[in-house]
Amino acid sequence: MKLFDVMFGRPLASDEAHSAQISPAVGIPIFGLDGLTSAAYGPEAAMTLLIPLGIWGVQHYLLPIFGLILTLLTILYFSYRQTIVAYPNGGGSFTVASENLGDRAGLFAAAALMIDYVLTAAVGISAGVTALVSAFQETKYGPQLHQHQMGMCLVILAAIALVNMRGVKETGFVFLVPTILFVGTLLTTIGVGVFEALSTHGHPIAHSMPPPPVDNPTTKLAGWLLLYLLLKAFSSGCAAMTGVEAVSNGVTAFKEPRSKNANITLTVIIGILIILLFGLSYVARAYGVTAMDPNATTYQSVLSIEVAAVFGRQWFYFLTMGSVLAALSFSANTAFADFPRMARAIAGKDYLPHVFLLRGRRLLFSHGIYALTGLTALILIIFRGVTDSLIPLYAIGAFLAFTLSQAGMVMHWHKTMDAPHRLIKMFVNGLGATATGVTLCVLLFSKFLEGAWVTALLVPILIWLMMAVKRHYTRVRAETIDPTPLRLTGLEPPIVVIPMANWDKVTEKAMRFGMLMSPMVKVVHVDSDDSDTLGKVWEEMVLIPVRASHMAEPELVTVKSSFRTILSPLMDYVLKLEEDFPGRKIAVLLPELVVRHWWENLLHGQRVQLLKLLLLLKGNQRIVVVNIPWYL
Amino acid sequence: MKLFDVMFGRPLASDEAHSAQISPAVGIPIFGLDGLTSAAYGPEAAMTLLIPLGIWGVQHYLLPIFGLILTLLTILYFSYRQTIVAYPNGGGSFTVASENLGDRAGLFAAAALMIDYVLTAAVGISAGVTALVSAFQETKYGPQLHQHQMGMCLVILAAIALVNMRGVKETGFVFLVPTILFVGTLLTTIGVGVFEALSTHGHPIAHSMPPPPVDNPTTKLAGWLLLYLLLKAFSSGCAAMTGVEAVSNGVTAFKEPRSKNANITLTVIIGILIILLFGLSYVARAYGVTAMDPNATTYQSVLSIEVAAVFGRQWFYFLTMGSVLAALSFSANTAFADFPRMARAIAGKDYLPHVFLLRGRRLLFSHGIYALTGLTALILIIFRGVTDSLIPLYAIGAFLAFTLSQAGMVMHWHKTMDAPHRLIKMFVNGLGATATGVTLCVLLFSKFLEGAWVTALLVPILIWLMMAVKRHYTRVRAETIDPTPLRLTGLEPPIVVIPMANWDKVTEKAMRFGMLMSPMVKVVHVDSDDSDTLGKVWEEMVLIPVRASHMAEPELVTVKSSFRTILSPLMDYVLKLEEDFPGRKIAVLLPELVVRHWWENLLHGQRVQLLKLLLLLKGNQRIVVVNIPWYL
Repeated sequence: MKLFDVMFGRPLASDEAHSAQISPAVGIPIFGLDGLTSAAYGPEAAMTLLIPLGIWGVQHYLLPIFGLILTLLTILYFSYRQTIVAYPNGGGSFTVASENLGDRAGLFAAAALMIDYVLTAAVGISAGVTALVSAFQETKYGPQLHQHQMGMCLVILAAIALVNMRGVKETGFVFLVPTILFVGTLLTTIGVGVFEALSTHGHPIAHSMPPPPVDNPTTKLAGWLLLYLLLKAFSSGCAAMTGVEAVSNGVTAFKEPRSKNANITLTVIIGILIILLFGLSYVARAYGVTAMDPNATTYQSVLSIEVAAVFGRQWFYFLTMGSVLAALSFSANTAFADFPRMARAIAGKDYLPHVFLLRGRRLLFSHGIYALTGLTALILIIFRGVTDSLIPLYAIGAFLAFTLSQAGMVMHWHKTMDAPHRLIKMFVNGLGATATGVTLCVLLFSKFLEGAWVTALLVPILIWLMMAVKRHYTRVRAETIDPTPLRLTGLEPPIVVIPMANWDKVTEKAMRFGMLMSPMVKVVHVDSDDSDTLGKVWEEMVLIPVRASHMAEPELVTVKSSFRTILSPLMDYVLKLEEDFPGRKIAVLLPELVVRHWWENLLHGQRVQLLKLLLLLKGNQRIVVVNIPWYL
Repeated sequence: MKLFDVMFGRPLASDEAHSAQISPAVGIPIFGLDGLTSAAYGPEAAMTLLIPLGIWGVQHYLLPIFGLILTLLTILYFSYRQTIVAYPNGGGSFTVASENLGDRAGLFAAAALMIDYVLTAAVGISAGVTALVSAFQETKYGPQLHQHQMGMCLVILAAIALVNMRGVKETGFVFLVPTILFVGTLLTTIGVGVFEALSTHGHPIAHSMPPPPVDNPTTKLAGWLLLYLLLKAFSSGCAAMTGVEAVSNGVTAFKEPRSKNANITLTVIIGILIILLFGLSYVARAYGVTAMDPNATTYQSVLSIEVAAVFGRQWFYFLTMGSVLAALSFSANTAFADFPRMARAIAGKDYLPHVFLLRGRRLLFSHGIYALTGLTALILIIFRGVTDSLIPLYAIGAFLAFTLSQAGMVMHWHKTMDAPHRLIKMFVNGLGATATGVTLCVLLFSKFLEGAWVTALLVPILIWLMMAVKRHYTRVRAETIDPTPLRLTGLEPPIVVIPMANWDKVTEKAMRFGMLMSPMVKVVHVDSDDSDTLGKVWEEMVLIPVRASHMAEPELVTVKSSFRTILSPLMDYVLKLEEDFPGRKIAVLLPELVVRHWWENLLHGQRVQLLKLLLLLKGNQRIVVVNIPWYL
C-alpha cells in the first residue's frame, strides 16, 4: 500500500477537512486557468471570421468586437460577485437556477454545465496537444507525433486525473507554475508591444514580419451581410468567456471567509483576462496582424504571429509558446476542480447516483473525478483528439448556464430582499441575464449546423436521464420508508431448505444450523444418476439421532433431474414450496466451501454462487438465503 | 434460446445417452483423421533430411526408412488391438499405465498426452492454414492472407469447437466428406503412379517435371555421420505415426459391441495409412522426387510435386491439394474427440478439476472442449500460427504415451492371465513397448535442441500440477468427511448482528428475522458524520414495541468512523464479537435491496456485496451470513 499512498496521498480523516481548503492565490490557477487560457484562442477565433475583410477588417472591427465582449465580461463579473456573496456554500448555476426558478430550470443548467465541463477538459487537453504537435510539425518527429495525438491526449488526461485524486491543495501548487508563466509571458508581450506602438506613434516595426493579409479584401459588403459576419465573429470570440462560472461553483473549496476569498480570486482572474484580451487585440491591430486560414500549409496561430512580431523568434518566443501549451493542457484542471462539486450538488437532489455524495479517502468526491475522466476520455476517443471538431459544441453550455443562473439571481433578490434595496441587485443580475441570453441566441443561430446541434440534442437527453434517476430514488424511498415501529406479531419460524449432495462435515454444520432455526427442515437432494447415495445414509446419520433427541424430524426430498442440471430443479422446488405455504418465510441454507487460495476455487464448482444469484433474481420477499461457510 | 439451440443442438436427457454413440464408418473420420493426414507431412519430414544426399539418398534410403516406420506401425497396430479388447471402457495410455504401472506412470502418460492433443489441434489447424496461404502466395491476396494467418487459425479453431459442442455423432458426418476426398485423391494418385511406374519398367514420364535435386550430393559420408543423418530422417518420419492412440482412447464412443467396432475402425485406419505412406514413398522414388529446402523461394511440398508429376497441374491437382488443406484443418478434430474423454478419466482419479467429470447439455464433457479450445488458442497465439515452430515439440508426447501404454499392457497380461496363454500377448505388447521406447530415445536425442526440450520440461510441470490438484481433493475429503451421525448437542442460538444505516422497511424486515433467530440481537450503526440519525428513533421504533412484547431487548451499537469507511469498522466489530464470545455462532444479517433492472444497481452502493465478500474472506467457521432481500 506504500506505493499507492505515494501516488494518491495518505488517507485523510474527516476532521482534517479544513486542510483541503485553499487561499485566493491558490484559487487562481485552480479555478481561473480555464478562463485565462481562453485568451489564447478567443481573439483568434474572432479574427478568423474577419479574414475576408483583410487588414481593414482588423483595423475597423476588432477593437469594437472585443469592446463588446469585454463589456459582457464586466457585466458577468458584477453578476457573479453577487452570486458568490449570496451563495457561500457554492452557487453553481444548478443550485441558483433550481432554488429560484424550480427543479426543471436547475436540471437545464445542470445538463448544460455537465456537457461544458467535459468539453472544457477535452478542449484544453486536445488544444495543448495539437499546439505541441504543430510546433514540431516541421521536424522529423512531426508525422509520428501526429499519429499518436489521441494517445498523448489520454496520457495527459490520466496525469491530470491522478493529480486531482491527491486533492485540491496539492493541485493548486502544481498548476501555479504554468499559470504564472502563461500570464507573465503574455503580459510582457502586451507591455512591450503597447510601449513600442505608443513610442512610434502607432507604427511599430515588427521584428518578424506578420504574413500579408488576403489579396483582395472585401471592403464593400451589403449591410446585413456585414452584420451577420460581425455577429459570427462575436460569437466565436465569446469562447474567450467560458470558465467564468468556475469560481462561483467552487466557493466551498476556499478558506473562510469563503465569499470574500472567492471574490478576490474572481476579481484577479477577470482583471487579468480583460487585460489579456484587450491587450492582444490592441497589439494585433498595431502590428497589422491578420488571422491565417487554418488549412493553409504555412499556418501559424495569431498568438504565434504576434509574439514573433514583438520579439522576433528568439528564446522568449519559445518560452511564451511553451507556456501557452502547458497552460492549455493544464486548463482542463478547472473542470476537474468543479465537476465533482457540481455532481455532488445534483446528487444531493437525487438527480444523479448517490455515489457522487461520498467523500473518498482524500476527502474529495472521488466518483466525480472518475466520471469526468471517463467521459472526457470517451469524447477524446470519439473525436480522436481533434480540437477543431469540438469548438462548435463548446460555449453553448456555458452561456445557457450563465443565463439561467443570472435569471435565478433576479428571482432570488426578488424573494429575499425588500423593495428599495433589491432594485440595484436585480438590475445587475437582470442585465447579466439579458446580455448572456441574447448572446446564447446569437451563438445558437450562428453555430447550429457546425456542431451546436449536438449540444442542443444532448441537453434534453441528460435531463431525461436525470429525471429517471430521481424517479428511481423517489420510488425506492416511497417503497421502503417506514415511520411505524417494529411489528413483533406473526413471528413464525421459517421453512428451512438445505440442498445436500452427500453427508459430510459441511452439510452436518448446515443441518445443525437449520435444526436450530426452525422445526420444519427440508433437505433437498437432486439425483441425476439414480445412485441415491444420500438416501442410504439418511436414516442412520440423521433420523436416528433426531428421534433420540425428540426433535421434529427433517424431511428428505429427492428430486430427479433428467438433464443433469442441479440448479433448476432446486429453484423449482423452492418456488413451489413458497407457493404451497403462503405467508411462510423460506430460509435456504447454502453450505459453502471456503478455500485458502484463489486458485483452489477452480477445483470446485461454482454452483453455490450461481444458486445464490438465481435465488436473488428469481426469489421474492419471503425467500432468505443463509450462507454456511466451511473453512478448509 | 432458439438461436442457441440451433447452434449447439437441443439439450439431451440422460437416457438419450445411446444416441451419441457411433458406428465404425463414422469412427474413421473422428478418430482417424489425425493419423491419416500425417501421411501428408510424414514422408516430406523424412525426405527433407535426405536432401544433402540428392536423388541417390531417395533411391537408396527412402524405402528402407519407411519400411522401418511401417514395421513399427504394424507392431503398434497389433499392440493396440489387444489394448482395445482388454479395455472396452476406454484404454487410453493414462488408464493402462496407471492401472498396471502405478499412478506415477499414469500421470507421466497423462501429461504427455495432454501436450500431444493440444499440439495435434494446433499443428492440424496451422498446417491447414499455412498450406492455404502458400497456395495463394503468388496471387495478390497472398501478403494479406499471410498477415491474418493467426486470425484464420483462431476462426477455424472456433468453428471446430462449435461443431464439437453439438456432439460426436454430428461431428462424424461433418468430417466424413474431407476424409473421403483426402483418402480418395491420394489413393488415386498412388494407383496411377504405381501403374505408370510398373508399365514403364520403373521409368515413368512425369507430366510436370520435379525440380532437380541438389547439385553436389554428398554420396560419401563417414559411417557414423550417415547413421546419424538416417536416424534424424527416421525420427522426423515418425511424425507420421502420431494419432494411432486415438481409437483406443475413445472406445466408449462406439456402438456395442464396442471393442469389435473400435478394432474395425483401427484396422481400416492403419491399413489406409500404411498404403498411403508406402505408396507415396514408392511414387516419390519412381518419379525421382526429392524434397525442397522449405526456405527456398520456389518451395513446393513433396506432396504437391508428386501429384503434379503424376497428373500435371490440371483440375485433379487442385482437387487433391484442396482436400489436403481441408483434411489437415479438420484433423484437429481428433484431439477434440479424445481430449475431453481423457480429461474425464484423469479427473475421475482426482488429478484434474472435477468439472471435467460433468456431462454438458449435449451429453458431452463440455469442459474438456473448453479447456482444449483455450489451450490450443494459447499455443496458436504464442507461436503465431506457424507450424514449423511446433513440429519439433510434437511426437515426443505420443511416443512417451505409446511406450508407457504398451509397458502397462505387458504388466496387465502378466497379472490377469495364466502362464501359457499370456506369453504371446506379452510378447506382442513387449515388442511394441521396446520399439516405441527405442524410438522415443532416438527422437529425444535427435530433436532435443530444436524444441523437444519444451515438451521435456512441460511434462514434469504438468505432473506436479496434477499432483497438487490430487493433494487438494484428498485434503478436502479428509477435512470434510464425516462418517458420524448428526450431533444435536450444544445447539445455542447465534448472536445476530444487523448493520443498519437508518430505520426503514428493509431494516425492519431484517430486525423481525433477527428477533426470530436469537434473543441476542446487536444492531450496528456506523456513524461517520456525528448525525446519529438512528439513535434518535431507536427508542420509539424498536425498544418500546420490544418491551411491550416482553422479548429480549436488542442492543444498538454505534461505531465511529473517522475515515468515512463503513465496511472496516463493521468487520472489526464482528471479529471482536467473535473473540469475546468464544464458541458462539454469529449470524450477520444483511438487508439487501434487489432492483428490477440491472442499471438500477448503478444507483445503489455495492457495500452489501463487498461486505459479504469480506465476511467470507476474513470470517471463520462461526460466522454465518444471512441475506435478507428486499424486492422493489
